[in-house]
Amino acid sequence: MPVNLTAPDPASLHPVPGVRLGITMAGVRKANRRDLSVIALDEGSAVAGVFTKNRFCAAPVQICREHLAAGAGIRAILVNTGNANAGTGEDGLARARQSCVALAAAMGIQPNQVLPFSTGVIMETLPVDRIIAGLPAAIAALRADAWAEAAEGIMTTDTLPKAASVQVQIQGQTVTITGISKGAGMIRPNMATMLGYVATDANIAPELLQSLVRDAADASFNRITIDGDTSTNDSFVLIATRKAAHAEISSLASPEGQVLRDAVIQVSQQLAQAIVRDGEGATKFISITVEGGRDEHECQLAAYAIAHSPLVKTAFFASDPNLGRILAAVGYAGIADLDQTLIEMHLDDVHVVTKGGRHPAYREEDGQRVMKQSEIGVRVHLHRGPARTTVWTCDLSHDYVSINADYRS
Amino acid sequence: MPVNLTAPDPASLHPVPGVRLGITMAGVRKANRRDLSVIALDEGSAVAGVFTKNRFCAAPVQICREHLAAGAGIRAILVNTGNANAGTGEDGLARARQSCVALAAAMGIQPNQVLPFSTGVIMETLPVDRIIAGLPAAIAALRADAWAEAAEGIMTTDTLPKAASVQVQIQGQTVTITGISKGAGMIRPNMATMLGYVATDANIAPELLQSLVRDAADASFNRITIDGDTSTNDSFVLIATRKAAHAEISSLASPEGQVLRDAVIQVSQQLAQAIVRDGEGATKFISITVEGGRDEHECQLAAYAIAHSPLVKTAFFASDPNLGRILAAVGYAGIADLDQTLIEMHLDDVHVVTKGGRHPAYREEDGQRVMKQSEIGVRVHLHRGPARTTVWTCDLSHDYVSINADYRS
Repeated sequence: MPVNLTAPDPASLHPVPGVRLGITMAGVRKANRRDLSVIALDEGSAVAGVFTKNRFCAAPVQICREHLAAGAGIRAILVNTGNANAGTGEDGLARARQSCVALAAAMGIQPNQVLPFSTGVIMETLPVDRIIAGLPAAIAALRADAWAEAAEGIMTTDTLPKAASVQVQIQGQTVTITGISKGAGMIRPNMATMLGYVATDANIAPELLQSLVRDAADASFNRITIDGDTSTNDSFVLIATRKAAHAEISSLASPEGQVLRDAVIQVSQQLAQAIVRDGEGATKFISITVEGGRDEHECQLAAYAIAHSPLVKTAFFASDPNLGRILAAVGYAGIADLDQTLIEMHLDDVHVVTKGGRHPAYREEDGQRVMKQSEIGVRVHLHRGPARTTVWTCDLSHDYVSINADYRS
Repeated sequence: MPVNLTAPDPASLHPVPGVRLGITMAGVRKANRRDLSVIALDEGSAVAGVFTKNRFCAAPVQICREHLAAGAGIRAILVNTGNANAGTGEDGLARARQSCVALAAAMGIQPNQVLPFSTGVIMETLPVDRIIAGLPAAIAALRADAWAEAAEGIMTTDTLPKAASVQVQIQGQTVTITGISKGAGMIRPNMATMLGYVATDANIAPELLQSLVRDAADASFNRITIDGDTSTNDSFVLIATRKAAHAEISSLASPEGQVLRDAVIQVSQQLAQAIVRDGEGATKFISITVEGGRDEHECQLAAYAIAHSPLVKTAFFASDPNLGRILAAVGYAGIADLDQTLIEMHLDDVHVVTKGGRHPAYREEDGQRVMKQSEIGVRVHLHRGPARTTVWTCDLSHDYVSINADYRS
């Protein structure tokens, strides 16, 4: 059961001028399943992406990096589910290239104007013939208002499609930011991948886009964790069709740049949090804020130590306000000269730890009340500097073990 | 159910000349439970220890470091279960000191000749009065052949006592190495701690002991992981009573030094592996060897990434030879310039991955056969250098979640 997550209302997903989406059933792994999506971008669109840091990155990730670096102007995004084309060596690269060639030919563009994405089973041969055979139907289906279908078309074992959309005003013009994401564990049994696509019609200088996608990822997809496993295929792509009638945004620090940046981050955070809410076996959505660090890096060390601790995660599952486990995770996070006697901790509004020990006024039933909620905030103050960070995670339940222990079938 | 582990046969645990052990029921947390142990050491004994790196280290750990540094000659070890005296601030330190003062007075030694250890509930006040009241009975019970009872006396939620003993010949003299350990998760629900005590009568120069205990820890307790959580109280202590009649060992590189070192490591590894075999919910014992690294550090990064991955651990639980998960863990282990096309992987004798992809001759049923075993060897070759390491872990089962999600009661 996803935690406070519902399928997006298609009417709430504003089309983005210059973006059309076509989804079809190509039978990549299973029949009668929407498993092939094409996103067509008008000429003049700018595209930037961030990709998995996993050294075992999948073939399509390698090609995405190559095609973005080529700078020919990305015009199409191709996503298949059912097969991740990861751990497939030279043959996997060749097959991913074949799919780009086929889509480029069908759309009258160059192969290096296509970004390919694959998600699904690892270490199996990509059935590229089926993907190529499905392209005409996907292209024929291209529509501006198909975001909800695309959100469904990129799902693997997600229980719900994930999409978000906002509109903002820039110089009196309505600008749209709409996106979709998928991924329920960092890696499913052997389904790989978190994918995120966000598009806007904002007229932003192309050279700013890489910085914006990095900022957005750092504020969203890079702040979520389900099980700490980094997939071979994780990708997040930001598209700007630059069709909006406002003057070109030439700085993210300008008022217009900030409005756009905030809106892109808002959509990205919704998409990222939706992945956690649909996390494998999740019953709780947990926001972990660590503040008072010397720099953001050490705040992240502590936040992820808490978020990744199986002991902390099972305590959340059990609604057990087990303070020792959280403090112990902070203690082993790797902050070398941490002074434990300065640590403060809150569970939502409840002050549970002061000066590294139990707060004198803390009562177990207050902690228990917060731990029983479906949304829980943990706030740790290190009292050694001005930095802070927040990460989002879910609990570790019996269902997580069941889902991941199911033999691939 | 522990994995291939049985309670030690008391007769197999050789007494160590110069060491006597006394165990009693002090009612620290529960009645009728052996929860207080005193280990008395003859004058002239040398003692060295390694302790948790957790910044939230418990009060007794701080005092152990202080007393070892004082150099007055450790004559007694005091261990209580039922309460970890962690997260207890200045009051916790004062209570731990009180216990040392009381034991020293009863034994006619100085307080800084006592090493105190506590394991059990975190963040609750140490009932030091009950511990002090129990000391006379523990002292009265001191015997050289009480190792099996001591192994039981330091248990918290372990399902079996853990002990090991070997004898070696040094210059025609029989030298004994006997030890005990406890700890079934790195931290239990809110029971803390891995503890290990190894004693020998070998006549080793006291200044070599710290180096030997570090080597032994690095080869044993520092190579095990159940859930990646580092406790606030983890401690490993090596005692040399120096009673054996051989000439003093003045170098660990001498033939005698090597015999002793190997034997201490052997006992330490048995004790460490016993903790994994009794890991919370464990159904499989897994040895992960990473070789071909540039240095041992990067081998450890990869080995622990595999050992800590919940996805890998649930795959072991399910007997699922899910290669993608293991390769993905190697990929995100943090080895920056890892070349995925060089990776080889074996499951026991089965060659599953070659050049970063599935071995052409690999058949799923061969992987499946190995994964069904209760003891599994994973061997990954990075092919980038001469270093290697091995770590031991267990799988992640439904019982792990059940045990750790049980509300403290």
